[in-house]
Amino acid sequence: MPDDLDPAAIDPTIATAMATAIAESVGSQGSSSPNPPVGAVILDRDGAVVGRGATQPPGGPHAEVMALRDAGPAARGGTAVVTLEPCNHTGRTGPCARALIDAGVAAVRYAVPDLSPVAGGGAATLRAAGIDVVGDVARTDAEAGPLRHWLFRQRVGRPFVTAKIASTLDGRIAAPDGTSQWITGPRARAAVHEQRARLDAIVVGTGTVIRDDPSLTARHADGHLYPHQPTRVAMGRRRLPADARVADDAAPFVQVGSHDPADVLAALPDALWVLVEGGPAIIGAFLAADLVDEVDLFLAPTILGAGAASIDIPSVQTLTDARGFSITGVDGLDPDVRIRLGRPTNPT
Amino acid sequence: MPDDLDPAAIDPTIATAMATAIAESVGSQGSSSPNPPVGAVILDRDGAVVGRGATQPPGGPHAEVMALRDAGPAARGGTAVVTLEPCNHTGRTGPCARALIDAGVAAVRYAVPDLSPVAGGGAATLRAAGIDVVGDVARTDAEAGPLRHWLFRQRVGRPFVTAKIASTLDGRIAAPDGTSQWITGPRARAAVHEQRARLDAIVVGTGTVIRDDPSLTARHADGHLYPHQPTRVAMGRRRLPADARVADDAAPFVQVGSHDPADVLAALPDALWVLVEGGPAIIGAFLAADLVDEVDLFLAPTILGAGAASIDIPSVQTLTDARGFSITGVDGLDPDVRIRLGRPTNPT
Ligand SMILES: NC(=O)c1ccc[n+]([C@@H]2O[C@H](COP(=O)([O-])OP(=O)(O)OC[C@H]3O[C@@H](n4cnc5c(N)ncnc54)[C@H](OP(=O)(O)O)[C@@H]3O)[C@@H](O)[C@H]2O)c1
Ligand SMILES: NC(=O)c1ccc[n+]([C@@H]2O[C@H](COP(=O)([O-])OP(=O)(O)OC[C@H]3O[C@@H](n4cnc5c(N)ncnc54)[C@H](OP(=O)(O)O)[C@@H]3O)[C@@H](O)[C@H]2O)c1
Repeated sequence: MPDDLDPAAIDPTIATAMATAIAESVGSQGSSSPNPPVGAVILDRDGAVVGRGATQPPGGPHAEVMALRDAGPAARGGTAVVTLEPCNHTGRTGPCARALIDAGVAAVRYAVPDLSPVAGGGAATLRAAGIDVVGDVARTDAEAGPLRHWLFRQRVGRPFVTAKIASTLDGRIAAPDGTSQWITGPRARAAVHEQRARLDAIVVGTGTVIRDDPSLTARHADGHLYPHQPTRVAMGRRRLPADARVADDAAPFVQVGSHDPADVLAALPDALWVLVEGGPAIIGAFLAADLVDEVDLFLAPTILGAGAASIDIPSVQTLTDARGFSITGVDGLDPDVRIRLGRPTNPT
Repeated sequence: MPDDLDPAAIDPTIATAMATAIAESVGSQGSSSPNPPVGAVILDRDGAVVGRGATQPPGGPHAEVMALRDAGPAARGGTAVVTLEPCNHTGRTGPCARALIDAGVAAVRYAVPDLSPVAGGGAATLRAAGIDVVGDVARTDAEAGPLRHWLFRQRVGRPFVTAKIASTLDGRIAAPDGTSQWITGPRARAAVHEQRARLDAIVVGTGTVIRDDPSLTARHADGHLYPHQPTRVAMGRRRLPADARVADDAAPFVQVGSHDPADVLAALPDALWVLVEGGPAIIGAFLAADLVDEVDLFLAPTILGAGAASIDIPSVQTLTDARGFSITGVDGLDPDVRIRLGRPTNPT
């Protein structure tokens, strides 16, 4: 648990602005990578919201600059509320700390400190310029939000990996004849597409590509594409059909000709968040390599009684070989249910 | 949906007493069969609870008589609140309508009408004796409570069947080496035992008896038995070991030497509620015969990746063969989750 500021000590205007900044940053997930998806809000002298922004794709402006542009002269004497400590380095864009000083803001409130040696130190620069700076504002919320996967990568050195399963009550993902679409209903599918639009990459096995020819793009219910598309990754050695949908020009595509999940992650050096969609052997390989940080199980209220099980780990022999997780959430997605699991809190 | 009285029209004292009567009847589930598990509360002239009771095992007093005994002379001029319309027939016990008249109650409130040709008509008898009688009080609650399985048997002519599954996230109930205890944790197990204590029978296959030698009794965490024990049923033709625990004297036992689930239900003519605990082929056979009215899925937050799946239906070929249910409840039983499903509301 990070050291949040005592919530009672936070001005309600700042708390609301931070929630807005977090919500604003959702739209940058996936497209900002490898940079963090940051959100920013500018309040004027009277505490009114006059600007909002979020990190643009690499090479584009950061959240603070977007929000300052949105605010214009109203930023002068106001407060910038940002999900991450403003950056201090001149990369492809100028440092955000500089932009905030130049815009004449009187105060900065941020949630999460930036500990990276290159970009960190923005708070000190701002203070040296006479700006009133407070960090750790709603830090827990911000760390659990869109910044989560970037923070994970900073700490662990690889992308955060979610495994997605859509199965029947009895754990089947396909019938004996290979039919598998659709096990879950429209609401569960919409949730999957909304998540795809915030990811860096989706991994499937060559078997799924050959059998189902999925496009793996992030689409709205009417079929039109979300603005950001994840990279589609096929894992396996077989040559894929030249006209496979995963290789069309709707989104990037790579094939990783290996059975080792670590090779897949190494092929995605800029990725913050990767989804492993299957089939059973692919999810099994990531689990066996201890490379699954979260499981999203979409359970349909149906029973098949035959067909492939959702996960296949050939090395498993006995019940103590089971891998433990911990339930972090249950959501009804009528008629289905989504069960979300994280790393075990009490490892067994 | 039954025609409940407008809830606003129900005296809050009566509503509370009916909730107490329903709660009281939980203790009679299983032991009252084939009679309905009824609960009753007696209020004195001032509306104070002076008596409670529930149906005793066959041959013993009904709920109203138990509650009247508990109340003694305080029942005179009071109100009887009963989950089922008081019976009118002289079976092994006298009619309850007569007992209420003799006790001098001024009013009767009941939830569910008794439509059986033998026992029904109690309300008319009470009215003829000058008692103020109102039915359909909290009828929906009472019908969803302990009376549910008896009402089902009255309507459908067979016991209500619940299938219980305890599996990993990937639908496994045993590891490749046959180990299967314990997949779920102490809370889920306690919920299973509490339910067993309210059932008429538990069905397993001969395979489970031979492999696991379970006792299938209803036990508290410390091992001592609940007062009521369900009949243990082994389904299958193989001869069982003479010392099998299911055949010990802690509870009744029958073997049904058939592979047809209808034969199992026919062997339980007094049963109101039957639980099918497995293994996979047995649950599959009940599903294939359309004899599963409810599914209780206890999902452990673990992944095996190998081993037997929870349900086996050899006839299933394609995805449209899937059997649909409808989620009616999700309960956290830390670290597990229980998903309860009923017959589909929109059959597919
Ligand atoms: N419901 C869901 O959530 C979901 C999601 C995805 C897929 N599915 C279903 O899953 C089924 C496809 O399963 P599948 O097993 O045929 O295909 P798959 O798991 O997608 O691919 C299996 C192939 O991946 C390659 N591979 C890469 N790494 C591997 C490793 N570590 N271990 C083993 N193989 C590895 C191998 O092919 P190479 O010989 O080319 O190396 C292997 O044959 C389809 O029915 C599909 O509909 C369901
Ligand atoms: N986690 C759970 O919820 C749970 C619950 C129960 C069992 N289990 C596990 O399930 C495993 C046992 O499975 P199992 O398959 O060996 O045993 P099973 O399903 O308990 O019994 C199978 C046997 O039942 C008989 N049978 C009766 N009706 C049948 C029908 N319609 N179709 C097929 N067979 C029928 C057959 O034996 P005959 O030759 O004698 O006729 C068959 O061999 C064990 O590992 C046990 O731990 C898990």
